[in-house]
Amino acid sequence: MFENSERTDIAELGEFGLIKHLTDNFKIKHESSIKGVGDDAAVLNFENKEVLISTDLLLEGIHFDLAYVPLMHLGYKAIQVNLSDIYAMNGIATQVTFSIGLSSKFPLEAVEEIYKGVQLACDKFNIDLIGGDTSASKQGLVISVTSIGYAEKKDVVYRNGAQEGDLLCVSGDLGGAYVGLQILEREKQIFLENPNIQPDLEGKDYIIERQLKPEGRRDIVDLLGQMKIVPTSMIDVSDGLASEILHICQQSEKGCTLYEEKLPIDPMTYETARELGLDPTVCALNGGEDYELLFTIKQADYEKLKHDVDISIIGHITDKNSGCKMVSKSNVVHELKAQGWNAFKL
Amino acid sequence: MFENSERTDIAELGEFGLIKHLTDNFKIKHESSIKGVGDDAAVLNFENKEVLISTDLLLEGIHFDLAYVPLMHLGYKAIQVNLSDIYAMNGIATQVTFSIGLSSKFPLEAVEEIYKGVQLACDKFNIDLIGGDTSASKQGLVISVTSIGYAEKKDVVYRNGAQEGDLLCVSGDLGGAYVGLQILEREKQIFLENPNIQPDLEGKDYIIERQLKPEGRRDIVDLLGQMKIVPTSMIDVSDGLASEILHICQQSEKGCTLYEEKLPIDPMTYETARELGLDPTVCALNGGEDYELLFTIKQADYEKLKHDVDISIIGHITDKNSGCKMVSKSNVVHELKAQGWNAFKL
Repeated sequence: MFENSERTDIAELGEFGLIKHLTDNFKIKHESSIKGVGDDAAVLNFENKEVLISTDLLLEGIHFDLAYVPLMHLGYKAIQVNLSDIYAMNGIATQVTFSIGLSSKFPLEAVEEIYKGVQLACDKFNIDLIGGDTSASKQGLVISVTSIGYAEKKDVVYRNGAQEGDLLCVSGDLGGAYVGLQILEREKQIFLENPNIQPDLEGKDYIIERQLKPEGRRDIVDLLGQMKIVPTSMIDVSDGLASEILHICQQSEKGCTLYEEKLPIDPMTYETARELGLDPTVCALNGGEDYELLFTIKQADYEKLKHDVDISIIGHITDKNSGCKMVSKSNVVHELKAQGWNAFKL
Repeated sequence: MFENSERTDIAELGEFGLIKHLTDNFKIKHESSIKGVGDDAAVLNFENKEVLISTDLLLEGIHFDLAYVPLMHLGYKAIQVNLSDIYAMNGIATQVTFSIGLSSKFPLEAVEEIYKGVQLACDKFNIDLIGGDTSASKQGLVISVTSIGYAEKKDVVYRNGAQEGDLLCVSGDLGGAYVGLQILEREKQIFLENPNIQPDLEGKDYIIERQLKPEGRRDIVDLLGQMKIVPTSMIDVSDGLASEILHICQQSEKGCTLYEEKLPIDPMTYETARELGLDPTVCALNGGEDYELLFTIKQADYEKLKHDVDISIIGHITDKNSGCKMVSKSNVVHELKAQGWNAFKL
């Protein structure tokens, strides 16, 4: 990936030199970031607001494949998927820590690429990098991100607040990241069999981008704020819509009815799923990695968002005994099951 | 390690089942923990205090060797080394997130052992487990810990506040963890050469414990509070005393004079270092992993702590141009150099 002339050995810099080199360009943007990188701990102040904390581990060979994930995208995505958890609490994300374990084969230039992606995500989403840990790794690339944000107490939205009759809403569209991954996997196999064949990703840019460069839906949190809607429950769609709906219903002790025809699926996702012999509905329900927001609102709030094209109303909350159901396009009622990603079944 | 009859496959539980199983016994102890495990993010409230955040990555083969680190000790140590960073800010640690990447060979019982250690550390140090991430790992065992704590603004101690004339103090004793590691490495080599020879750790329990079961010095933070001493600077000794002193001097833009004869070295550390052909002073200066607190105080505070046997005054702060010096027992002045651990030179 990097020519020998462009390779700088990380051991030359040492841990502190490396951290300084990689984080020097990051400027602090928030008053709440009293002290960022460079001491034993970061120091923050949120003035009596609720503080939100979320953490993710991203491991090579499990969460990403360096054969087709560009390093800058990896840094960008690592931040975005973690910010998404703060947005899912209806919060404002303000800080991240970024920790990385690097094989000694990794030259400095490769690490710089990852940090370019981190910085792009931080700049675009107005986030301060306030700490992290940097280590050698004898195994693969290891990334750990912790996101910090805040919200007024009255604005924090949990998973367990859905009420009977509430409308089930989702932002954006679903299944794209999963179908994009299938295309990348297909092209990787073709490349492995014949390295002379260039990957054919033409016309697939939207779904490839959904996979490689997802965006946390801060804009939806802003929009809900402007509309003066506080969802009754919310979660981000990381493991697949079905799995997330079940989390909300379980924690709220409710049931739900979901309508297949209401699922927002982009035409490119739909067509590509068909090409690959996949059911687009199954991709939307179980694909995962969409990082859209799934939330419930009171019926009284329906008028406020009914015209928003970026939010789909896909069903409603019922009582617990009714269970979690999906009504198919042909009007057959199915039990909703989570067949999302199980990181322990590989 | 575990008989087949005691092995439960993690994949049977799935990620959410595993998290529930492992965290069900953890009870929330702090009012500041509004919501712990089980939503997109944890929710905390520190009522206008400064919030402290620190994160560490622990990787198999780099930070620990499962050949001689018992899993429960590993969980305990992972928490302690990260809490140590909060104490080094003169803060009260209150929460942790604990993330883990597990090889599929790891049975549930092994993960339970790790969590027993996590729980022991949390119970002993009054810490709430409020989140984390759980994943398969194709490589080795991966652990990431983020600690959260708080302090009044006036009590937060940074690395950069040391003033000329301040006294340089360190808690406990130094070099033990490093010498303990050398003993464990030696016994591992003997075992690898002849598995019938039992490890000979007799009489070495203190230094073995310093390596396997370090304790963050919360008691020193409490003690300083009782004595009404706010150090002018503080850092924890994770990479070796010399490296940490240089951090304080660099960030405070000062020099220092350190006295070899004042270095607190336990007799067992001293004797064992000699046995192994190591210089005890070098072990104390560069060994690392002691997790003691190194801090500077105003001379006016000397009277308050001069009788405390657990705190040694090892030198004083000078002006920047004087550099960082150590006066040896034979009165020779050496330049102080950090030869601490470089995770990138393996």
